[in-house]
Amino acid sequence: MKCYSEMNKEELMSEKNALEAKYKDFKSAGLKLDMSRGKPGVEQVEISMPMLDILDSSSDCTEDGIDCRNYGLLDGIPALRKIFADILEVDVENVFVGGNSSLNLMFDTITCLMTQGIAGCEPWIKQEGIKFLCPVPGYDRHFGITEFYGFEMINIPMDKNGPDMDLVEKLVSSDEKIKGIWCVPKYSNPTGITYSDEVVRRFAALKPAAKDFRIMWDNAYVIHDVTDNGDKLLGLMEECKKNGNEDLPIFFTSTSKITFPGSGVSAMASSANNMKVFKNRYKYQTIGYDKINQLRHLRYLKDTDGLIAYMDKHKAVIAPKFKCVLDMLENNVKATGIAKWENPNGGYFVSIDVLDGTAKEVVRLCKEAGVVLTGAGATYPYGKDPKDSNIRIAPTYPSVEELSMAMQIFCVCTKLAAVTKLLG
Amino acid sequence: MKCYSEMNKEELMSEKNALEAKYKDFKSAGLKLDMSRGKPGVEQVEISMPMLDILDSSSDCTEDGIDCRNYGLLDGIPALRKIFADILEVDVENVFVGGNSSLNLMFDTITCLMTQGIAGCEPWIKQEGIKFLCPVPGYDRHFGITEFYGFEMINIPMDKNGPDMDLVEKLVSSDEKIKGIWCVPKYSNPTGITYSDEVVRRFAALKPAAKDFRIMWDNAYVIHDVTDNGDKLLGLMEECKKNGNEDLPIFFTSTSKITFPGSGVSAMASSANNMKVFKNRYKYQTIGYDKINQLRHLRYLKDTDGLIAYMDKHKAVIAPKFKCVLDMLENNVKATGIAKWENPNGGYFVSIDVLDGTAKEVVRLCKEAGVVLTGAGATYPYGKDPKDSNIRIAPTYPSVEELSMAMQIFCVCTKLAAVTKLLG
Repeated sequence: MKCYSEMNKEELMSEKNALEAKYKDFKSAGLKLDMSRGKPGVEQVEISMPMLDILDSSSDCTEDGIDCRNYGLLDGIPALRKIFADILEVDVENVFVGGNSSLNLMFDTITCLMTQGIAGCEPWIKQEGIKFLCPVPGYDRHFGITEFYGFEMINIPMDKNGPDMDLVEKLVSSDEKIKGIWCVPKYSNPTGITYSDEVVRRFAALKPAAKDFRIMWDNAYVIHDVTDNGDKLLGLMEECKKNGNEDLPIFFTSTSKITFPGSGVSAMASSANNMKVFKNRYKYQTIGYDKINQLRHLRYLKDTDGLIAYMDKHKAVIAPKFKCVLDMLENNVKATGIAKWENPNGGYFVSIDVLDGTAKEVVRLCKEAGVVLTGAGATYPYGKDPKDSNIRIAPTYPSVEELSMAMQIFCVCTKLAAVTKLLG
Repeated sequence: MKCYSEMNKEELMSEKNALEAKYKDFKSAGLKLDMSRGKPGVEQVEISMPMLDILDSSSDCTEDGIDCRNYGLLDGIPALRKIFADILEVDVENVFVGGNSSLNLMFDTITCLMTQGIAGCEPWIKQEGIKFLCPVPGYDRHFGITEFYGFEMINIPMDKNGPDMDLVEKLVSSDEKIKGIWCVPKYSNPTGITYSDEVVRRFAALKPAAKDFRIMWDNAYVIHDVTDNGDKLLGLMEECKKNGNEDLPIFFTSTSKITFPGSGVSAMASSANNMKVFKNRYKYQTIGYDKINQLRHLRYLKDTDGLIAYMDKHKAVIAPKFKCVLDMLENNVKATGIAKWENPNGGYFVSIDVLDGTAKEVVRLCKEAGVVLTGAGATYPYGKDPKDSNIRIAPTYPSVEELSMAMQIFCVCTKLAAVTKLLG
């Protein structure tokens, strides 16, 4: 195998014929595999089955003097708030434990800023021409929220250190219509990189033109290593405090990829000033979230150390899947020079930049061969990848065997789309 | 004991002295009781403890072919949607199962109408001078939502048949700024009455000036009888269909007062047109609600008949408490002619109209004697009861013994405030 850019037309034609033959074989195998979403696999949800034994009809459901079976306690169980405070590296008094979904907390936060305003500013819905910065490639559900509310979304290129901070600083300091930025700072969705210390420090030192500019810091993969040398993310809140910028960031996380997806516990945190605004809304929205599920989590995971140690069980299941994807790319695609990717130490995705102008075609070819990928473009606002190049691979749901088969197909499709494109 | 209005000054003075002596005794007893919220008692949450045994580490969590431990299924588990469809008397395809709180669904619904609009109308937040009808006395958390969003709230008097429909019809048909009405149609919070068939039919036949007028039909107490001759509520959706008014009502309910308050399951339903708007928001807000808790409820309650039969357990606990409150009022207050109340067949409250201008004083006197009641005025928008007369008693949380003591104090305070007022 050699680099496609060094092949002449004849060589490319011969490569194409070989790939087409392989593709035809795969297609006739009638495979059905879904690598479209960052969904834990069955083995992973099995890990947490003992949590269902934690509470039974004989349990004392009192915690911190509170009967968790009855109404009340809007903020959540204090000992659980402490765990989230530890992993988010924020003050426990500003941690709010929500329902089963951090996406829901993010949606509610943006909605609150839309209708209520913050820092003495008008609600965003009453300000015209609101904009949001979107590091790309990024998380489609983030972009979905700001698209739902009609924001103009501005792409910010990502590299292995995080978003392009020169561009972020320039835009944020000069345009008061820019109200926020979506960030997945650790094991970024989808590239898997972790923001460098310098990037975090530059976020903490931002001088936004808009008083109501906020950083949506979605730390979804805060303790989600897949290798033994996990990344370290600098604590944003500490850095913000050094700059008098405590009001800038809003932190989110959840146990969706720790215990049960859809039946976990979410949390958010921000400065006292910000939490006052958000809690003044939550108190009208609900009497409180599900404390029995909070209690179940607390007694199962025990404490912050228990939570972190628990992640080894997931790592054991996921690590071989990441290895499979990365080995396949290394062995089958790398030499062709047509694609680039990172080797993430954690998170849920491998993000691949295939040959420009071929991502949609790769996704189509895979689908026809029975392998469903995240739609090409989904990692960009409005679903529009300007280079038609980025594809997000979610390796967690299939088994290693399935994944191995799916990745063989993916590699063939990636190369087939490329040679076809190169041949014009 | 005779009617206070027939007493001369001397008799009132003597009554006042006697009441003050009793009050002094109660005060020195140092009681601490909370009758402020509609909160199930400990005995009631104990009823549902076996639900915590339903799922354990050996359970098959697959239902309708769906692994309830993983992401997905925005609408909720089909068999659970069917149960809610049955009790709300609506079509199952338009039922949406939410998280742990119907209040949260109501808040999200109003928020959706605020920011998105419905029926081709502008979002409410972009329309000026929006109004909402509030049957009074009513539920403070309903009024809280419309106050939070800055609606002008208009009081609609309630009688034993429901809201004053002459007034509702007149206002709704003439003022397009009126966008909705809050209703607790069965065992109304707090009066405990159930809307008559005629009232339901008149709701179903409304001809609102505003195309985006909606009825918030909070059927929180849909199966919550406390006597053996429970009320029957006419099905609103059937009646609406007869009038081509399917888009008018939005239905809500939950198991908060069936299984665990704060850890139950909520549901909403509306026409296909309306649900399309709401679901287009939910799909950005969340990937799905807690299906493990939905499954736990489904397997525990089994089906609609199982759910309804389950309510007998609550009735057995609550009925003596309602009887205690009503007997106390009957025996200690009725003859004085200074107060009025209904004898509800279900729900969570006894609503008492004390002598005009004395509700705040009664609540204050009770509080000083260690009995916390819902704040006077709380049953009215903005916390303002124009007659300062309505008090909501929530009998479920204390034990019968505590309740008996608390009601003795309440009766004395009610009479003491009245004679003091009558004596000028």
